[in-house]
Amino acid sequence: MTEGTLVIAGLGPGHDALITPEVTKALAVATDVIGYIPYVARIPPRPGLNLIASDNRVELERAQHALQLAVEGRRVVVVSSGDPGVFAMASAVFEALEAGPAPWRDLDIRVLPGITAMLAAAARCGAPLGHDFCAINLSDNLKPWALIEKRLRLAVEADFAMGFYNPRSNARPEGFGRALRLLQQLCDDQRPIIFARAVSTEAEAINILPLQKATPEMADMRTVVLLGSSATRLIERPGKPPLVYTPRSVP
Amino acid sequence: MTEGTLVIAGLGPGHDALITPEVTKALAVATDVIGYIPYVARIPPRPGLNLIASDNRVELERAQHALQLAVEGRRVVVVSSGDPGVFAMASAVFEALEAGPAPWRDLDIRVLPGITAMLAAAARCGAPLGHDFCAINLSDNLKPWALIEKRLRLAVEADFAMGFYNPRSNARPEGFGRALRLLQQLCDDQRPIIFARAVSTEAEAINILPLQKATPEMADMRTVVLLGSSATRLIERPGKPPLVYTPRSVP
Repeated sequence: MTEGTLVIAGLGPGHDALITPEVTKALAVATDVIGYIPYVARIPPRPGLNLIASDNRVELERAQHALQLAVEGRRVVVVSSGDPGVFAMASAVFEALEAGPAPWRDLDIRVLPGITAMLAAAARCGAPLGHDFCAINLSDNLKPWALIEKRLRLAVEADFAMGFYNPRSNARPEGFGRALRLLQQLCDDQRPIIFARAVSTEAEAINILPLQKATPEMADMRTVVLLGSSATRLIERPGKPPLVYTPRSVP
Repeated sequence: MTEGTLVIAGLGPGHDALITPEVTKALAVATDVIGYIPYVARIPPRPGLNLIASDNRVELERAQHALQLAVEGRRVVVVSSGDPGVFAMASAVFEALEAGPAPWRDLDIRVLPGITAMLAAAARCGAPLGHDFCAINLSDNLKPWALIEKRLRLAVEADFAMGFYNPRSNARPEGFGRALRLLQQLCDDQRPIIFARAVSTEAEAINILPLQKATPEMADMRTVVLLGSSATRLIERPGKPPLVYTPRSVP
């Protein structure tokens, strides 16, 4: 019987004041913290703690490494930004677990939720996701582009507000422009779009504008994009940025 | 120039270890905390703090009261469970603000995100929302039932995983059964459904079963319901509840 544990923890969007006490406590008793380089860089070193940082795009190998350490009796924390269950490490760990050796299934595994980028961004500009909404990963690394377009069309037809993760990267410079042009064709109104970059960090930048005026280079790897539904409204304020919200009611 | 402030803060799903330090700090300097009775009951009393609890279904009046107190110079915190921007108090405050007197727009207003019920529930059973997903409020108090059915049909067609808030209450005993029957007709597969009640509290109960075996009375007012996409999988574990996850990839 192993005493190793595996925790998959969300560090939130960037500021330490957005890390839950539950996650802080798990980090305090960890023997090994493993994750993508910039997330591991957020963890203060201390004696007895191994910090294991790896590059992007090696999520499955990282997950296997974490599971192996835990089965050897270590107290392992896999760190994700945001919420580990939203386009982050939790699914990668379970994919590795399902395909891995039987003892991995005996492990004590817990997922600790965090503040996901979409909801941190929404809070910064009001309540744009205050009615029914969807979350779509715009990267076509792991799914066909045609499926992304299909989901965008159906999401507009359903009149969801939307949160878009991974809109644009150096390796995928073109996709977001295609998504944006499709949305601009489908949404024939003045609904706002929000580009929220590096929310809660010193590099935070929030850009609110009408969807029809948005251009692809407004997004980068650190941006989450929110799009209103047809009902989403702007409240203008003197000397302050506008508030964006989606009303609770549909008449 | 008023010095009053209005913070709309998320208390998370129930356990204090899921409240962010940012929210804890805002509560520590508040003069007035206002919200629905069970949420205000979570705030420890202290000298100089007014606790103002009101009943369900008076969200707009509560929002107006909070804005009025803030404009009078108080440091007001409106408390929501979960995340205030997800089917909670933030949209109600902005509806009141938009329709209210001009000085309300000069207020220093901040929304502090929290762990929303859907993501807390997902973490408890694995990563069922690990791919594209949507969130739908199943209450027809504030929108027509036909719109709920339309969104369910489109969400199934888009093959989203789904989170359902407010599935069933004493005042709306029938709607969830209709939604469930529709989903059972539309989804002709073995995808799992999860009934997650009072997550992170002493009353927590997680029920994972095939959608086709679900019945309406499995949900109540304290339940959030998660439904997998067609790709959502179960990992069986000896002596432990299964893990539910949606893979990151679509072939």
